[in-house]
Amino acid sequence: MKFFTFDGNINKKIGIIGGGQLGKMMILAAKNFGCYVTILDPNKNCPASSICDEHIVASFDDKDAIISLANKSDVITYEFEHIDYKTLIELFNNDKKIYPNPHSLKIIQNKYAQKIKLQENNIPIPHFERVKNVNDIKNYANILGYPLVLKASKGGYDGKGNLVIKNIDDIDKNINYIENICDDMFVEQFVNFKFEISVLACRSIDGDIKIYPIAKNIHNDSILHKTIVPANISKNLEQQAKNIASNVMKIFDGVGMFCVELFVTDDKILVNEIAPRPHNSGHFSIEGCITSQFENHIRAILNVPLGSTSLIKPSVMVNLLGEEGFNGDVYIVGVCKALDTENAFLHIYGKKQTIPKRKMGHITVIDDDIKIAEEKADFIYKKIKFISK
Amino acid sequence: MKFFTFDGNINKKIGIIGGGQLGKMMILAAKNFGCYVTILDPNKNCPASSICDEHIVASFDDKDAIISLANKSDVITYEFEHIDYKTLIELFNNDKKIYPNPHSLKIIQNKYAQKIKLQENNIPIPHFERVKNVNDIKNYANILGYPLVLKASKGGYDGKGNLVIKNIDDIDKNINYIENICDDMFVEQFVNFKFEISVLACRSIDGDIKIYPIAKNIHNDSILHKTIVPANISKNLEQQAKNIASNVMKIFDGVGMFCVELFVTDDKILVNEIAPRPHNSGHFSIEGCITSQFENHIRAILNVPLGSTSLIKPSVMVNLLGEEGFNGDVYIVGVCKALDTENAFLHIYGKKQTIPKRKMGHITVIDDDIKIAEEKADFIYKKIKFISK
Repeated sequence: MKFFTFDGNINKKIGIIGGGQLGKMMILAAKNFGCYVTILDPNKNCPASSICDEHIVASFDDKDAIISLANKSDVITYEFEHIDYKTLIELFNNDKKIYPNPHSLKIIQNKYAQKIKLQENNIPIPHFERVKNVNDIKNYANILGYPLVLKASKGGYDGKGNLVIKNIDDIDKNINYIENICDDMFVEQFVNFKFEISVLACRSIDGDIKIYPIAKNIHNDSILHKTIVPANISKNLEQQAKNIASNVMKIFDGVGMFCVELFVTDDKILVNEIAPRPHNSGHFSIEGCITSQFENHIRAILNVPLGSTSLIKPSVMVNLLGEEGFNGDVYIVGVCKALDTENAFLHIYGKKQTIPKRKMGHITVIDDDIKIAEEKADFIYKKIKFISK
Repeated sequence: MKFFTFDGNINKKIGIIGGGQLGKMMILAAKNFGCYVTILDPNKNCPASSICDEHIVASFDDKDAIISLANKSDVITYEFEHIDYKTLIELFNNDKKIYPNPHSLKIIQNKYAQKIKLQENNIPIPHFERVKNVNDIKNYANILGYPLVLKASKGGYDGKGNLVIKNIDDIDKNINYIENICDDMFVEQFVNFKFEISVLACRSIDGDIKIYPIAKNIHNDSILHKTIVPANISKNLEQQAKNIASNVMKIFDGVGMFCVELFVTDDKILVNEIAPRPHNSGHFSIEGCITSQFENHIRAILNVPLGSTSLIKPSVMVNLLGEEGFNGDVYIVGVCKALDTENAFLHIYGKKQTIPKRKMGHITVIDDDIKIAEEKADFIYKKIKFISK
């Protein structure tokens, strides 16, 4: 009986490490429940700064600042994984409520450790191997063949820290980069996937798991460009993907939202990466689902029942990035064409400066016909631009 | 062609007079567009204070504060109508963008002037008459018969300032109250209505009007208790109501959201009251419609195209009021039962103190079957309580 474990006290103080768009959208959800929110972010003008109750302007590895955040908050969460897990583990071991579990964060934020953990638990992943130097890479290439992906264990997102090695020349050309990351890197078989899917899942403190409709992702230059939901995959594949995501949630003692990114090949699915937080590929859920990924994340960490993840209508989300060739105070053009499109929803993150490829906002279009949703999303994407004057 | 008049600049600075739950929900909508929001409200801890960028803590009739708000903002709006229209008119006459038009606000905030304006424009309203004293009331009662409603022209909401007079004794019993408001009061025929409906409408600066599905309202003690959408009225009545709302928007040069409350009797519909702002009876639109009343209000004042007002699913909204017998720091019970109900959405306004009958939050339930939505809403309403410890 769920009611006995949920504590049901909803107007809590929440601390969020990170004040980007994910933090901002967490706050928008938390504010519907009347929560008090403090963020920790080094950027005084980060997107979440304008709607939080308090903002601790400090680095993500500032131990004193994290402790100060903990002292102000009933519960702590984070919007991205490259933060100081050590302080969080100390606080956690002293009974501070921190979700997801910082012991799992420690593993997840190190891509190599993450893969070892997944492998130990029989989660299907691409072949990978620890490498220490150029010779190791060449040896591994002799066994598995090219192409390979060389990955830094720490710090990468949106494809940063990953190097695709197509042939032996690519190794020699990137010798400086390789030596720079050689204390913690690994190579991975390049997966010639047909497409990539995301399974967004939320787990409550007492173990209830809700899984969102599976999303198909399209990337440009390793940055998510478009998410299409539902992913139009077979029932069998859908079930496999959901089982994998459920297992991942349990393996990592997940509380709150997780995103499991999977490669789909001709004959199998393989986990690419795990994010222990709401994810860009889950933004469609704000309008496309009964309960958004942000609301469910907040519900989970508040220890109240999770909401329905049912799809209201098929949905297409497109990221809006800073336009090439523009740096500076942001100016947005084409808004009217976006807003004049029925069933299109515009989200502008409120970043004051645009930089090429910076995530500035997104649009979601919902429609009973997914093709119409995609056409509308593509149309808006072409019209709306984040430039500087 | 709409595109030629919408200015399309979306990241504007908005000033909102009033920081209650309506102001808060306006900000939640504005933040999706990356706007900068300043509020003016005398209460340091008002619901909107926790998510605005700036808060001018000042009285609603503090001229200097209103001017300061105007100086910080590209556009000004308000969340309730009992504010200093004179300063707003001065600013408006000096080309400050203020929506809705403060000249209309002046008329609407005086219920007698509002009725005269509606009457002049052939909008159907109950019979009414200016009265100056007890004798006038008695004379009018002799003509129209009892019951009557005595209304103060200024300041009332949620039925405050209204006195139902059932017989001559009710006049004599309330002599003090009558003498207190006698400089500006009127009597109105008591309408024995079957039910009340709301027409929520939004008008853009260039005159585009979007009307929401008609809502049926149920009141307890003159405070809105429940809104049911769609209202289940005849097509003919629906069309009449929508025509009235459209005309009202034009008569008052409405920009942004208006609510037109109508009495439905056996053979006619009569306008009860007009609110030049988002309205409690439109809260269902947050989850029930493609574009919420708050987003459309913000779109209108930003001068960008309005969004679709289509219903996603039939919706029932129930207000959550402070529990009788409790005053003090709010404590909420029954949240888990509310959140464990599929397709139910909880909104807690974040008021720190509960007072009996204070509006503390609301719930909306959406469902293809309106009866199921209403049953769920009634169930949650019984379970969730705002008390103090």
